[in-house]
Amino acid sequence: MTPELSTADQAALTSGSDFWRTTAVESADLPAVTVTDGPHGVRMQASSGDLLAGIPATCFPPAVASASTWDPELLRRLGEALGDECRAMDVAVLLGPGVNLKRSPLGGRNFEYFSEDPLLTGVLATEWVRGLQSKGVGASLKHFAVNSQETDRMRISADVDERTLREMYLRAFQRVVTRAQPWTVMCAYNKVNGVYASQNRWLLTEVLRDEWGFEGLVVSDWGAVVDRVAAVRAGLDLTMPGPDAAGDRALVDAVRAGTLAAAALRKSADLVREMIRKAGRREAGGYDAAAHHALAREIAGRAIVLLKNDGGLLPLRERGQSIAVLGEFARTPRYQGGGSSQITPTRLDDALSQIQASTDAPVTFAAGYDDVAEAVEAARASDVALVFVGSAHETEGADRESLDLPAEQLTLIERVSEANPNTVVVLSNGAVLLTSPWEARVPAIVEGWLLGQAGGSALADVLFGRVNPSGRLAETIPVRLQDHPSYLDFPGEHGHVRYGEGLHVGYRGFDARQAPVSYPFGFGLSYTTFAYGPAGGEGLEIRVPVTNTGSRDGREVVQVYVSLPGSAVRRAPRELKAFANVAIPAGATVEVVLHVERDDLAYWDTRLGRWVVEDGDYVFEIGASSRDIRATVTRHVGGDPVRVPLTADSSIGEWFADPRGAELLGALFAEAAASAGDSTMSAVASDPNVLMMLNSLPLSRMAMFPGSPFPPAAVDQLVKDANS
Amino acid sequence: MTPELSTADQAALTSGSDFWRTTAVESADLPAVTVTDGPHGVRMQASSGDLLAGIPATCFPPAVASASTWDPELLRRLGEALGDECRAMDVAVLLGPGVNLKRSPLGGRNFEYFSEDPLLTGVLATEWVRGLQSKGVGASLKHFAVNSQETDRMRISADVDERTLREMYLRAFQRVVTRAQPWTVMCAYNKVNGVYASQNRWLLTEVLRDEWGFEGLVVSDWGAVVDRVAAVRAGLDLTMPGPDAAGDRALVDAVRAGTLAAAALRKSADLVREMIRKAGRREAGGYDAAAHHALAREIAGRAIVLLKNDGGLLPLRERGQSIAVLGEFARTPRYQGGGSSQITPTRLDDALSQIQASTDAPVTFAAGYDDVAEAVEAARASDVALVFVGSAHETEGADRESLDLPAEQLTLIERVSEANPNTVVVLSNGAVLLTSPWEARVPAIVEGWLLGQAGGSALADVLFGRVNPSGRLAETIPVRLQDHPSYLDFPGEHGHVRYGEGLHVGYRGFDARQAPVSYPFGFGLSYTTFAYGPAGGEGLEIRVPVTNTGSRDGREVVQVYVSLPGSAVRRAPRELKAFANVAIPAGATVEVVLHVERDDLAYWDTRLGRWVVEDGDYVFEIGASSRDIRATVTRHVGGDPVRVPLTADSSIGEWFADPRGAELLGALFAEAAASAGDSTMSAVASDPNVLMMLNSLPLSRMAMFPGSPFPPAAVDQLVKDANS
Repeated sequence: MTPELSTADQAALTSGSDFWRTTAVESADLPAVTVTDGPHGVRMQASSGDLLAGIPATCFPPAVASASTWDPELLRRLGEALGDECRAMDVAVLLGPGVNLKRSPLGGRNFEYFSEDPLLTGVLATEWVRGLQSKGVGASLKHFAVNSQETDRMRISADVDERTLREMYLRAFQRVVTRAQPWTVMCAYNKVNGVYASQNRWLLTEVLRDEWGFEGLVVSDWGAVVDRVAAVRAGLDLTMPGPDAAGDRALVDAVRAGTLAAAALRKSADLVREMIRKAGRREAGGYDAAAHHALAREIAGRAIVLLKNDGGLLPLRERGQSIAVLGEFARTPRYQGGGSSQITPTRLDDALSQIQASTDAPVTFAAGYDDVAEAVEAARASDVALVFVGSAHETEGADRESLDLPAEQLTLIERVSEANPNTVVVLSNGAVLLTSPWEARVPAIVEGWLLGQAGGSALADVLFGRVNPSGRLAETIPVRLQDHPSYLDFPGEHGHVRYGEGLHVGYRGFDARQAPVSYPFGFGLSYTTFAYGPAGGEGLEIRVPVTNTGSRDGREVVQVYVSLPGSAVRRAPRELKAFANVAIPAGATVEVVLHVERDDLAYWDTRLGRWVVEDGDYVFEIGASSRDIRATVTRHVGGDPVRVPLTADSSIGEWFADPRGAELLGALFAEAAASAGDSTMSAVASDPNVLMMLNSLPLSRMAMFPGSPFPPAAVDQLVKDANS
Repeated sequence: MTPELSTADQAALTSGSDFWRTTAVESADLPAVTVTDGPHGVRMQASSGDLLAGIPATCFPPAVASASTWDPELLRRLGEALGDECRAMDVAVLLGPGVNLKRSPLGGRNFEYFSEDPLLTGVLATEWVRGLQSKGVGASLKHFAVNSQETDRMRISADVDERTLREMYLRAFQRVVTRAQPWTVMCAYNKVNGVYASQNRWLLTEVLRDEWGFEGLVVSDWGAVVDRVAAVRAGLDLTMPGPDAAGDRALVDAVRAGTLAAAALRKSADLVREMIRKAGRREAGGYDAAAHHALAREIAGRAIVLLKNDGGLLPLRERGQSIAVLGEFARTPRYQGGGSSQITPTRLDDALSQIQASTDAPVTFAAGYDDVAEAVEAARASDVALVFVGSAHETEGADRESLDLPAEQLTLIERVSEANPNTVVVLSNGAVLLTSPWEARVPAIVEGWLLGQAGGSALADVLFGRVNPSGRLAETIPVRLQDHPSYLDFPGEHGHVRYGEGLHVGYRGFDARQAPVSYPFGFGLSYTTFAYGPAGGEGLEIRVPVTNTGSRDGREVVQVYVSLPGSAVRRAPRELKAFANVAIPAGATVEVVLHVERDDLAYWDTRLGRWVVEDGDYVFEIGASSRDIRATVTRHVGGDPVRVPLTADSSIGEWFADPRGAELLGALFAEAAASAGDSTMSAVASDPNVLMMLNSLPLSRMAMFPGSPFPPAAVDQLVKDANS
């Protein structure tokens, strides 16, 4: 074992020494190590005076884009590349990935998060962490937990029922922790059900460590700690930023006063020490900026989602097709959001230059938004018009207020599409924008998200068909904001936000209400087409032959959605439980194999406080999107044993549904009926209406009714006998 | 003062002596008095062996119907009539009215409740109570509170945020308590936010007594008490039914052991005693059964809502128009629901006989549901076809599973409407049924609810135009169940139901989502038409001239919906705040005067724990329904003074929004900026993104950031200075 540190040194270790470094303890040979912002690039602060400007690093596509690849292997390569850059910049821990669920499309930080689905989020983030950590650099899984909005984010209480927490908002964290053991987990700013995440023992210790077996340390979000002692007590190990001498002293005093267990502080300090040691073992290294730019371009190309392509307007021809490129975003790309994740890129591709370089025909540019007439003129004079539009701004710290494109951009689309029927809309946005009603005016829509520094070239790759689009929506595009499941309850007020839609986040809510959407979760077109054969396999393995029926090589993302008709609990009509991303050459057939994990079929049983896989015939829908189901199979899955103990509060119906309970109560009822002087209760029990009401009556309450077949005093014994 | 009772006598008084009577205390000259079920009739148990069969009494229209009259004066007369019948049957307290909000159209007991709107509910119930109590008979306002479902009703926890509780689920109770002082309030079976209503001190004492000034006693719903001592401690005065000798003893023991304050038990006993005394003062009397039947017919006629009447198919002609009456409900009326409110009527009118008596032309009857062919034949051979359909069953103890008409009735409508274009659908139902998509097939729809014992004659009155329909929907008819605001969260599971739609109950939710409905809240047609002039008046008084532009006398229900654009809190787009029910002779114009009460404009501020009327320009929409607005006026309303004290947890933005806070913090920021060695924080603060993030930072958290213009130690003094 390593030598014991003094209490003061332990306390000092649990807060930073400045904005980005831990505290060094020279006597213990512990240097300060650097932790810095991600997640889609390494943001090393360039000067002490300017928090946000970083030294140049590759700006990879933000999570909104990388998630749209639906490709875990790509995410792993992304993590590896980030690890290389961290090593080059002497960074011990990169602050990412962000796995908060996109509860509302208005969430200001959605561009940093993956999806509205916890499985997709968890699978992708797991590979990201594995890639990063394979380079000896630590990840920081954030923001734990339920940090799904920016409004009042430092104080708001996310009020969420436990089943929803477990199945939706904690689920991706659970997956990444149990499968990839990130070095650190970052606690969120907000409260969860009234308790600050930074002081939430249930969250940081009971769930994270005791249930999930987390072995790393919990770091605070920057400024998330309200009370150092309460935080350490709850399981928060490292408070950032620092220094916080007063807080360190408070910890020492609390240990001396016995109000904080010495072991709690020691455990936190040991975890920080262990992290510093692990960081010391990583090798230094450099990285190939050109290769990383190429990777950024590859990921961006795979992230673009082709939403619409009527008449095969896309891909563009490289010869003889004149193009009007309209909209400032083509020249000045929107490629990342604002806030802590903002990267100073090593280079920056714009779409306009890349388009010009891709064709031998004339390319005319007009900035558009302020001079629609010029854009219309250019559109009219060209064979094809590309309209670049998008959200003006997305940033940490503020939620959006609308999903609409700015009015002048809507005008641009309208006027250009009138002038040229061959109009392609290219979107740049960190979270979904409405496409209704303008989508009806244009034959083609390219969803270009925020694509990082190589987004411009990636867009040209897709527009000209050098890359066959295979991106899929990781979030639903609604017809109207008002239709969204979260609409009535976002972003809360007066310190509370109720997660009123419960489990019905994103597509689950739209499906539950059988409501229309503009583009469903999982959707995305290709320049080729795919045909699905009948599904086979057995158990939790699905095999389905998929044929590329077009003339171009392409990639298909095969999705498996599961439901359980007749489930004992409320469930969404379909939930993503597996997916596979496969390259299929033109004309070829590939047998796609998908594995659903049994654990992913479980629901959280609030009565038992544990996961339960129900016994039953599960329906597996295999589709190209959540609303394009191509094959369906039913598979029996054996369930977990479940017996809810009978109590005085269990209803008569529940007693009779239990074999032992039925035996005990049945005897008492029979006795009462047989006894002389028919009791009120047994007379009443002959009426079916009354019998139904009786069914819902708790045992103890029935005992108090005049004429009950058993007295209140008998209840305790009945409960004992039933459970013995 | 009255002589002190022994503790044992006090305890005995707080439970019943049998199902329907209080406990007599002869030494104190206190007789047992009778409390019995309502609310739409007096259900006196006929024999001790049969709980549910009552001696004959007038079965007035259940609340689903009486509420559709939108006529407080009618409700008062109903209460008076019930009071007369109570006196005739020696009943001290009638168990009603039921003012639970209709959260979901599936609620099994909706037929006993008034509306999805708390103002309409409260206004009508207040008059009902006033009417009843004017006869010296007590009311029992029930079920307090949030008993909006039958599923697991004895145990379920209604999980509702406080603003929703205050503004929606408690609001009608508050109105009735403060304006009509019902003798008793009945606590609900369920839990409210985890605590049984019967043991909920916040509900029964802090809100009901301390805030609202309730002077009567709290009686349990039958079997709602789990723990007598906890119940009395919380403010529950009378446990029903009885006897409960063990519970009485537990109370005595608890007082002796000091675990229950003697004053608490004494207070409950005194309230029971006071109720018994008040009951003793009422005069005996009889009632005129024929007159009460006529009143039941009047209310029922006013309750019927004409939903559709294309081409003026209705009213029917009394001469020469042959009629096919189809559907068993015309002969065997559905006129009340099942459960505790079930009345043995003094007589029973069926629609078939009443129709036959109303015309000189042939009337053909076919039972219909099982023999559609016979019904189709009759329809084809007649000038008009009346199809009587409805819900098969609504009862206390079970929620409904669907809003659809039974399949065979849908077939009947389809086939009959094909056979005869002059088809009128007459609905009998305790809560809304879907009219989509079949409504498009028929020119006329009559919503006949459950109309009580005179429903058959009332239907004939409306069908033949002897009564010009003026009923209005007190609940929205949705297009689909899935559209309903409560859909995703009803009826909960595993002991909890989340009121996820919050304030957006009923029409508030449909309006907030701008979602289509089949028939909106407040809707109802007449055989005449009304034109609205421009609205006048001033302050909270609205005056609007309404002209009967048709050739028949009629009644119009003028409704005032209020909103506050730019409100500091989330509000529904429109909320009913006043209505007037006015008779207007054909061709006449009446100036309708409506008063909005200032208190009804308040929202519940969870930060301050009180009602707040915001200062602002309120929009008053005057309409014939919630979606048929005829005039709009804006009125300024002066607000309540509101200052939320600044705390260490208040954000920098909130500090700067407060004049005193801005002064104090501003000085510190200026000082920091002026000081040598520019701090990180002041450098950071020059970036607008960062400034925005700063705005949401709580004061105490900012103090902990390196470079903060003030140290953590300064926070307490700042807070003191800001609030001094």
